[in-house]
Amino acid sequence: MSFTIQNVLIAVEGGYETADVQVADNCISALAKPSKRIAPNNSSSGNQGSETVIDGTNKLLLPGFVNAHTHSSEMWQRGIIPPLPLELWIAELYDFTPLDPEKVYLSALGTAVETLLSGGTTVVDHLVLIPGQELETIAAAVRAYQEIGIRAFIGPLIQDESLTAGMPAGENAIEHGAYIRSTQATLDLMESAIKQFHNPELGVNILLAPTGIQLCSDALFEGCIDLSDRENICRHAHLLETRAQKQLAQQKYGCSAVKHLQEIGYLSSKTSLAHCVWLDDSDIAIMAETKSTVVHNPLSNLRLGSGIAPILKYRQAGVNVSFGCDGAASNDSQDLLEAIKIGSILHNITDLDYRHWITPRQSVEMASLGGAKGLNVADEIGSLTVGKKADFVLYDLTSLSLLPRTDPIGLLILGRPTNAVDSVWVNGKRIVADGKVKTIDVDNLRQQLFEHSEWNSKRQSQTVSEIETHYRKVMNLQGYS
Amino acid sequence: MSFTIQNVLIAVEGGYETADVQVADNCISALAKPSKRIAPNNSSSGNQGSETVIDGTNKLLLPGFVNAHTHSSEMWQRGIIPPLPLELWIAELYDFTPLDPEKVYLSALGTAVETLLSGGTTVVDHLVLIPGQELETIAAAVRAYQEIGIRAFIGPLIQDESLTAGMPAGENAIEHGAYIRSTQATLDLMESAIKQFHNPELGVNILLAPTGIQLCSDALFEGCIDLSDRENICRHAHLLETRAQKQLAQQKYGCSAVKHLQEIGYLSSKTSLAHCVWLDDSDIAIMAETKSTVVHNPLSNLRLGSGIAPILKYRQAGVNVSFGCDGAASNDSQDLLEAIKIGSILHNITDLDYRHWITPRQSVEMASLGGAKGLNVADEIGSLTVGKKADFVLYDLTSLSLLPRTDPIGLLILGRPTNAVDSVWVNGKRIVADGKVKTIDVDNLRQQLFEHSEWNSKRQSQTVSEIETHYRKVMNLQGYS
Repeated sequence: MSFTIQNVLIAVEGGYETADVQVADNCISALAKPSKRIAPNNSSSGNQGSETVIDGTNKLLLPGFVNAHTHSSEMWQRGIIPPLPLELWIAELYDFTPLDPEKVYLSALGTAVETLLSGGTTVVDHLVLIPGQELETIAAAVRAYQEIGIRAFIGPLIQDESLTAGMPAGENAIEHGAYIRSTQATLDLMESAIKQFHNPELGVNILLAPTGIQLCSDALFEGCIDLSDRENICRHAHLLETRAQKQLAQQKYGCSAVKHLQEIGYLSSKTSLAHCVWLDDSDIAIMAETKSTVVHNPLSNLRLGSGIAPILKYRQAGVNVSFGCDGAASNDSQDLLEAIKIGSILHNITDLDYRHWITPRQSVEMASLGGAKGLNVADEIGSLTVGKKADFVLYDLTSLSLLPRTDPIGLLILGRPTNAVDSVWVNGKRIVADGKVKTIDVDNLRQQLFEHSEWNSKRQSQTVSEIETHYRKVMNLQGYS
Repeated sequence: MSFTIQNVLIAVEGGYETADVQVADNCISALAKPSKRIAPNNSSSGNQGSETVIDGTNKLLLPGFVNAHTHSSEMWQRGIIPPLPLELWIAELYDFTPLDPEKVYLSALGTAVETLLSGGTTVVDHLVLIPGQELETIAAAVRAYQEIGIRAFIGPLIQDESLTAGMPAGENAIEHGAYIRSTQATLDLMESAIKQFHNPELGVNILLAPTGIQLCSDALFEGCIDLSDRENICRHAHLLETRAQKQLAQQKYGCSAVKHLQEIGYLSSKTSLAHCVWLDDSDIAIMAETKSTVVHNPLSNLRLGSGIAPILKYRQAGVNVSFGCDGAASNDSQDLLEAIKIGSILHNITDLDYRHWITPRQSVEMASLGGAKGLNVADEIGSLTVGKKADFVLYDLTSLSLLPRTDPIGLLILGRPTNAVDSVWVNGKRIVADGKVKTIDVDNLRQQLFEHSEWNSKRQSQTVSEIETHYRKVMNLQGYS
């Protein structure tokens, strides 16, 4: 794969330059000022001699972003779960979760399409497993991501405690049923998944991703640490998404969840943690000390009423921060530019001093290099650097949503880009061109999603009605029931 | 104008129904269950006998939304102003404001296009006037809105104090230069604007819209009240957008701005007020008592760090609330669905009890009927009701961004719809069809916006550097300068 994007805008210190970007052997081989040559014609790509040339005129090239936390199969339930906090929302989610690997395949494709068309080249899928078909579930997602060509990190979502254990008990201890699978069986499953699917060269990576302290034993975390170290696999988890989880951690460990995870050795430079809403200053210091990454999911945090993660504090403490869409049932989209915009401007209300606010250029770096760091691949992707892999996105600056012309990155990050992604390359392969995904048939995907679903506004979750009274009581909500 | 949209989904109590929606004489003449007839073919529109028939299969029809507060000419500066609070942001905005009515015309078109393609049928343009060409500025906006066919409420932005008066003085009183135009000259100007342009039958309305307490004398407010009563014109203004304005109001009136506006008689059922971030419980009670409308601009409030308007409290107190994009330099888009989504889910973090959170159906009502109420036209537009004007929007539910099928309104409001608007009618006229604006040449608009602008990342605002030290001091920001 060898080509040159000519005359394209790239961001440089303090401004922009027009450059020719060359790719050879799937990597960026040169970034140069345009040499004197015959001006390219108006077609968007062509051949000059043996080398493919792409006209970058009026276009902006940025490193691909990382959708650093999502759950692809939630796409089947987007738009339908009513306004509920996480602990009730998840009960409804699990009542109606898809149980067919074919549906997992389709929603992984849908997640990938939306991520690609909003500037993402990498997706982290914290994948909900179908009980009894765990490896088939992973295989379905792998198949989707390989077909479409997005770089994927799949973290099978594992736990060893049952759902009700994820809520603080309050005054009355509650009996929780045993989880469907033993801790050891889950670790064995992960070992199989790594053997079968982990293949960084092909762009498919497995993550060790226990759901979080609310539903996992220390034995499960420790087994994951062991596997992670042995196989050189990154770690992922949810961390203190809700106020209820903070209460639960105190009840479970007698200390903060962050302190506990540090003590058992889960935190590291190859650990990324989704949400991190309810950390205090000493927790933040631990995150910095252990070089852990925070994945900020602003839309889900608002939608579920979880709160505002203290992102400006993380940045001031030197903690690496990246952005995720979170699953489509708590967002309810997979548009990464939307998550980046809201995840950037949201924090302006948390600090009176605007000199601490995130600038659009900082947002771009968090979404690209920050995402790469959290997956321990910052030496391979995350910036337009000679020698790094050609994972990048070409934006059409003549899209109405990016006009009039002002600061291209400001328009992209603070605006609401529509049909702005012209092309996407992952590992040097062009998988989006002229705004269309080229590797799969998107119209067929739409038809499949349409046929496998129905309009619905009246479903009732059995579990929500069973646990709501307890939730209201333990969270001290008016009137309780 | 007479037509029927057949087989279209409409929202009814507790769910959806398929209906035939008939329009005659620009108004909705019937909403009926589909009668037995030959199934429509797959073409999106056709003629059956003498009546135009539009196929609504797999489409959702909703009343048009109101973009209830924007400043169209800010579009020329979207994406470029760095992260700054309102008081400094506005100084930069004014340093580079466009001074050519042709540019006002183009940005009004751009604002209208983005509003229409995100579900809006009405725009409230709090229009920045070019000094010395005030009526020409209004004429340019009127021309744009009439050409494209959106329903427009234009509130020429008036004031009678100079910009620095909008900041609290702190310990040292500051001398402010006189404003460029006298209070009486401004009122005369408004009288001329009403005579010349106010024409509800043609879909063009003038609003009396002093910018707000921070830059307006009581004489200006009182003159506007008088004109409003005499000519039956609605009132608009900014209200307590920032913490600094709350301080200023105390300094200026010795009481809250809301109390003062009530005392001078500005608040009424035909008064809509943008932002309303810094109101306390007694202010909220006054808003309810006077039947004033709050226009919520969530993206701008985040972008400028203004804060979170207490929207759930307004709703509980019975205050009417609608949504606005605010000007594109503080948003930096004009996508109404984005404003509605964020303006709905943002408040979930302000109230632990999820039973108070805004549901997608409530959001739709706020954006449509709430918008209409704030402009005193709820008897004419704002819902799909027989006898009301045909201002409505047809959404294509087969857009990838609205799949898989779940709850159509949930998908639309909580998702991130892309290319989802199929058609828009205003006053019975179809101005968008098949996702394209039909009344103007959008490609030509893009070209004009492109040619009248340039990429820029390095401009420096003179005024910001002049006033920043004072701002930091009076807001007690670390290190001040």
